[in-house]
Amino acid sequence: MNDARIQVFEAHQRSRGIELEAVKQTLKGLKIETPSWGYGDSGTRFKVFKKAGVPRTPFEKLEDAAQVHRLTGMSPSVAVHIPWDQVEDYGRLREHAESLGLRIGAVNPNLFQEDDYMFGSITNADQSVRRKAIDHLLQCVEIAKAVGSDIVSLWLADGTNYPGQADIRQRKHWMEEALRETYQALDDDMRLLIEYKFFEPAFYHTDLADWGMAYNTALKLGPQAEVLVDTGHHPQGTNVEHIVAILLDEERLGGFHFNSRKYADDDLIVGTTNPYELFLIFYQILAALRDDRRPSVQKTAQRIAYMIDQSHNIEPKIPAMIRSVLNVQTYFAKALLIHWEALSEAQADQDVLRAEALIREAFEQDVEPLLQVVREEMGLPQDPMQAFFESGYLEKIQERGIGGASW
Amino acid sequence: MNDARIQVFEAHQRSRGIELEAVKQTLKGLKIETPSWGYGDSGTRFKVFKKAGVPRTPFEKLEDAAQVHRLTGMSPSVAVHIPWDQVEDYGRLREHAESLGLRIGAVNPNLFQEDDYMFGSITNADQSVRRKAIDHLLQCVEIAKAVGSDIVSLWLADGTNYPGQADIRQRKHWMEEALRETYQALDDDMRLLIEYKFFEPAFYHTDLADWGMAYNTALKLGPQAEVLVDTGHHPQGTNVEHIVAILLDEERLGGFHFNSRKYADDDLIVGTTNPYELFLIFYQILAALRDDRRPSVQKTAQRIAYMIDQSHNIEPKIPAMIRSVLNVQTYFAKALLIHWEALSEAQADQDVLRAEALIREAFEQDVEPLLQVVREEMGLPQDPMQAFFESGYLEKIQERGIGGASW
Amino acid sequence: MNDARIQVFEAHQRSRGIELEAVKQTLKGLKIETPSWGYGDSGTRFKVFKKAGVPRTPFEKLEDAAQVHRLTGMSPSVAVHIPWDQVEDYGRLREHAESLGLRIGAVNPNLFQEDDYMFGSITNADQSVRRKAIDHLLQCVEIAKAVGSDIVSLWLADGTNYPGQADIRQRKHWMEEALRETYQALDDDMRLLIEYKFFEPAFYHTDLADWGMAYNTALKLGPQAEVLVDTGHHPQGTNVEHIVAILLDEERLGGFHFNSRKYADDDLIVGTTNPYELFLIFYQILAALRDDRRPSVQKTAQRIAYMIDQSHNIEPKIPAMIRSVLNVQTYFAKALLIHWEALSEAQADQDVLRAEALIREAFEQDVEPLLQVVREEMGLPQDPMQAFFESGYLEKIQERGIGGASW
Amino acid sequence: MNDARIQVFEAHQRSRGIELEAVKQTLKGLKIETPSWGYGDSGTRFKVFKKAGVPRTPFEKLEDAAQVHRLTGMSPSVAVHIPWDQVEDYGRLREHAESLGLRIGAVNPNLFQEDDYMFGSITNADQSVRRKAIDHLLQCVEIAKAVGSDIVSLWLADGTNYPGQADIRQRKHWMEEALRETYQALDDDMRLLIEYKFFEPAFYHTDLADWGMAYNTALKLGPQAEVLVDTGHHPQGTNVEHIVAILLDEERLGGFHFNSRKYADDDLIVGTTNPYELFLIFYQILAALRDDRRPSVQKTAQRIAYMIDQSHNIEPKIPAMIRSVLNVQTYFAKALLIHWEALSEAQADQDVLRAEALIREAFEQDVEPLLQVVREEMGLPQDPMQAFFESGYLEKIQERGIGGASW
Repeated sequence: MNDARIQVFEAHQRSRGIELEAVKQTLKGLKIETPSWGYGDSGTRFKVFKKAGVPRTPFEKLEDAAQVHRLTGMSPSVAVHIPWDQVEDYGRLREHAESLGLRIGAVNPNLFQEDDYMFGSITNADQSVRRKAIDHLLQCVEIAKAVGSDIVSLWLADGTNYPGQADIRQRKHWMEEALRETYQALDDDMRLLIEYKFFEPAFYHTDLADWGMAYNTALKLGPQAEVLVDTGHHPQGTNVEHIVAILLDEERLGGFHFNSRKYADDDLIVGTTNPYELFLIFYQILAALRDDRRPSVQKTAQRIAYMIDQSHNIEPKIPAMIRSVLNVQTYFAKALLIHWEALSEAQADQDVLRAEALIREAFEQDVEPLLQVVREEMGLPQDPMQAFFESGYLEKIQERGIGGASW
Repeated sequence: MNDARIQVFEAHQRSRGIELEAVKQTLKGLKIETPSWGYGDSGTRFKVFKKAGVPRTPFEKLEDAAQVHRLTGMSPSVAVHIPWDQVEDYGRLREHAESLGLRIGAVNPNLFQEDDYMFGSITNADQSVRRKAIDHLLQCVEIAKAVGSDIVSLWLADGTNYPGQADIRQRKHWMEEALRETYQALDDDMRLLIEYKFFEPAFYHTDLADWGMAYNTALKLGPQAEVLVDTGHHPQGTNVEHIVAILLDEERLGGFHFNSRKYADDDLIVGTTNPYELFLIFYQILAALRDDRRPSVQKTAQRIAYMIDQSHNIEPKIPAMIRSVLNVQTYFAKALLIHWEALSEAQADQDVLRAEALIREAFEQDVEPLLQVVREEMGLPQDPMQAFFESGYLEKIQERGIGGASW
Repeated sequence: MNDARIQVFEAHQRSRGIELEAVKQTLKGLKIETPSWGYGDSGTRFKVFKKAGVPRTPFEKLEDAAQVHRLTGMSPSVAVHIPWDQVEDYGRLREHAESLGLRIGAVNPNLFQEDDYMFGSITNADQSVRRKAIDHLLQCVEIAKAVGSDIVSLWLADGTNYPGQADIRQRKHWMEEALRETYQALDDDMRLLIEYKFFEPAFYHTDLADWGMAYNTALKLGPQAEVLVDTGHHPQGTNVEHIVAILLDEERLGGFHFNSRKYADDDLIVGTTNPYELFLIFYQILAALRDDRRPSVQKTAQRIAYMIDQSHNIEPKIPAMIRSVLNVQTYFAKALLIHWEALSEAQADQDVLRAEALIREAFEQDVEPLLQVVREEMGLPQDPMQAFFESGYLEKIQERGIGGASW
Repeated sequence: MNDARIQVFEAHQRSRGIELEAVKQTLKGLKIETPSWGYGDSGTRFKVFKKAGVPRTPFEKLEDAAQVHRLTGMSPSVAVHIPWDQVEDYGRLREHAESLGLRIGAVNPNLFQEDDYMFGSITNADQSVRRKAIDHLLQCVEIAKAVGSDIVSLWLADGTNYPGQADIRQRKHWMEEALRETYQALDDDMRLLIEYKFFEPAFYHTDLADWGMAYNTALKLGPQAEVLVDTGHHPQGTNVEHIVAILLDEERLGGFHFNSRKYADDDLIVGTTNPYELFLIFYQILAALRDDRRPSVQKTAQRIAYMIDQSHNIEPKIPAMIRSVLNVQTYFAKALLIHWEALSEAQADQDVLRAEALIREAFEQDVEPLLQVVREEMGLPQDPMQAFFESGYLEKIQERGIGGASW
């Protein structure tokens, strides 16, 4: 990295009125959790292309995740999915994580891969299936406690395929009942994140179909229940950053599942389809973080859990995850370069052209020099991707062969 | 109408286990409000095709609306839009309505057609514009009282066109503040219906963009605030009947603006694009009406305000309205022919194919014989559309000329 | 079935001016091909719920398909997918079909389930993969000849997930080259049907993404290449029947894959999501069949290959297929009840309300009595679904156990 | 502009392997036509906010357009819309343009704003309306000759609102007939650009609804007929750059109407909603321009007509146009920084991550220093927007008052 490039970048930002030290400080604090299942095989309903070197056990998944953290300095925690990451001794899993410089993050129950759940899990008309599903949720709360995690993160795949197939309101009550029981099992410092999804795998109605349904459920449960936004789970055209702003304002934004999509829940590498949208999400979050008028909103913004949730079908797993983490950092860094005072002024003047220009101007900044400096100051490789390819790790894990963990 | 056809219809429904007397009773109680502005000229941004005979005053609009009620027996009330229907003496307007066998229904404030509102009304950064807009809302509450209406129905067109144009959360607070003031002006028996819309006329963010935002606002205001569902205001693919079910269950479904759409807010004649969707909405409402386990949900369902809100650009106005009202009746009637007990059984058994079949079977019934009987028993013409064309009314109003009311 | 109901139906249709004998004749000629893979297990990327009794071999799939034909009288042919239906002796497969009263229909190559195809098949940058894919296409042409089929039906899953991943125009040339070679292998009486799909499994670009791309390819290949419309493969809001009309007019509509969808390629039972759309497709086809001004368009309409292509994840397989075939028949029958002369008149008069009413009036007819008569005259059971459940076939195939054919 | 910033930019691009002289040369050749109607009032169906200073005549529109060209150096031509820009003496209009350093660009017929066209223009069932519409098209061809333009650019608003309203295929024939007559009136060096639009103002079917229909029509007319892509006229999720690539490859891409959209045909300032999409369009065009294997494709790419077509409802008109032109330049400039050789290599290797990274890396370059240099070398102001506000032009045109040209 050319020193001149960095100096010019710094001078330019100063001339724009940006305080770079604060920017760098915030950047160094950015943490993005990676998902254990992102290191395993996954794909589309038409084909999963199995890769050589995919981890065979939850322990190996952690080892791969540790590579991402080692090279990016941003991913100290790893989300787990139960039963995919079921082990006999969760204490050992936790110790393994810690030995790798990691910790276990969100615990994700799985209520969609057993035959019993064909017509729903906690919304199933069969009381015994509902019981089984609730027990699994409770088990996940206990696992979270065992691994030292304070987040249980629920994506509920329940829904129906046909009009009339089920009593929608009755299912809503069953769902609320099940989540109430789960909520009550939480320790005081734990949170239940409730994800929503527009469709898939259900194609008529999804019990938690949009942010309004997840939010309404969270309201009913209590303050430890929050909404999780998966960036790929909305109807076409949805203004996701608007939803983010609303949830922040209501102090119910719990976290994100980052990925990108052009069509449905495509689960592509975050930031590759419409990077501006990712930047605009961070604009809303950073605006909330700066909002001194509302300290509780600031607090909500501070504890947002940023998580990756993608499905790499044609990409090599670990490099795809490194790329994802770096992309989030890039568009977060750009949002840090917004000139907030000028923006507030333009908004107060209702000067549309100037306000729009100020936002896009920040997006147009090439933040590579900034990220280089931050990496250097954090003792990280200048090019994490190249460093990974040169590390020999990829060669080492070939011995795992083909046919590792998948879902 | 052939008597044999009616007899066969009745016999067939009996054989399906349907109690026709109750069906007829419910049908006779169906009321669908028509909008005063639906009788005037409207169109697309590209062209409004002005029609001869369009009413020139709010009084003439009521006269046209009276024709629809005279022929269909279902539309005794008329929604008004202020200032489109502004008059000096609202008592006189009310009396005119009553003299025509009508009453004034929902009062709709208009916060989108003055230059001051270019950047928003109750969300405008300019305090004086916000004040003006709130005053208009308060005026509409007073007009409602003056005309004897218990509903103020708000569609808020406010929004922005560009990222950064405005502070989304600040606007939310301004909106909540304005609606709180409006809400407090309501009499105890009045309701404030809050409409939402995905987009248009704003193309980046709309302050009330979806049911979740309208619902959240209603929750904050109090029990007299409810959500209004316009069937054309959702993202593509949205399961509208699911939203209806949720709002019913939360006792916050206030009313409907009926119309149909294939693309955006097309505002076409209700029931012409996807009639099955309209039927499925009524299925959810009728299911709620029958839900003895939840009397408060039943009460919510009973007082839903059904309203038409369309924009007839290429259709003759009054006939288009007659068709709309008849279409709503048709698909409502079909939903009444659902075999509820059989459906409950199939749902309890999670018998997907049978449950789906039961719903669609009701939809497949040709209800024309049923509607004939109901019309006969209500003393209405067998074919309201033909009766209208034969009534001479269309000829009479030609004297109004071209260039009547429009928006 | 009550005779009175049939008589009233017939009288009513006569009063509407419909010639029922012709309608019945056309109905009896309706043929809908079912897909061999529709009898096996399939599902979503999240879970395939495996069913007991699913066929284990192509031969057993034919046996299940024979049940559908036996009960509905409409499905004498079965589409096959290679290599899913690969057998050593295609003559034997053909004989087995014939012994069951069936014939083999469209032969579907599979270019998406081998590891080599991760980045594309006939559009792969690797020449040897393209060669392999073309060889598979040529093999399918030969299989078609061997089983006595005149249709090769290609869905090309090729596409990319990221901007820049591949040279889009170069891939187009490779694709055209491959299909040219395939086309040349066809016998004179054979057709190559080219399917298109908006997205999935590719999430950035799909090489054959819309009807325009499929049509353009067909134009380049020659008159034996036609377009196949899968009703679930379009962007939200697409007017599918418009595309059908255009392809008919250009004499390039080769066939359909019927299914229904609300969101993406949901592959649900045809006619269950928006039955009016299915009816409107048949309206366009029947209008073309009646268009004496254009005999070549009529000929195109006559030879359309109607095929089912669904993925039954939560439904029992054979009943789901029976329902699908019956649904197609139902909405086809309704389209036959359009009053064509009155419609032409209303269209000539540009009488929007009347023209719309005439179309929907046909849709509103309850065709159950008509279908009963047709079934009786064809010697079929009155209720094919019930007849199936009473036949004992379902019980018999339980011996196949769980874990049959799937994709 | 800091010299150091420019030097660092140049050094950085050199280090990336980019040849900056060629980039600057290409940038200086970029021409973007602005539309006369973009300087007048327009808006949504709900409200047109009329601005002070809006031009009152076609001559004043040209004067405003001249400001944009004076400051950006990129907009020497202006599209006109007939009859909005109808004048008695087109020679005088042409001379006025030339006196301002401009020329008249595409001539746009208007077939949607007369009462006769309520049910269509060249597709109207009334022969006399079709004749009138064709005559208007022929008149526009003559106007194009008179003003020295070689492009007639047709957006056909024709369509229907309801199923059954019209005979879709018959309308197709009428349309083809009308365009054939128009095509025959073209001089040899003229082009007919055919635009398509998914919906609006028609809400059931649009006669030219997608690129396939426009392309098919162009094929039938002959080589002087090409397709015009309006970036806002597609279904949600459409990969526009894919369509661009296909049309280039078939040598039928005639031009663009640039604008941006999130929902429908929002007609916002180009590049403000999803700037990456605009960049990806230019990536396809630049790739075609470099494709030595196909000189005729290169030729097609060279003569693409870039045009702005937006509707500024809340923005000041001239500044909005300046911003639009600059935005196009910005994302065009970024596409010029793609490293083509490295990209070809990554594509040949099917290295997904690297290929994607190379594309996005170009997008991430901050091109402001490059544009500064280009502006300086072209003798243009460093900040065209600021230069405009300081020019006093805005103050001068206030005398025009409110109520200028609109549509």
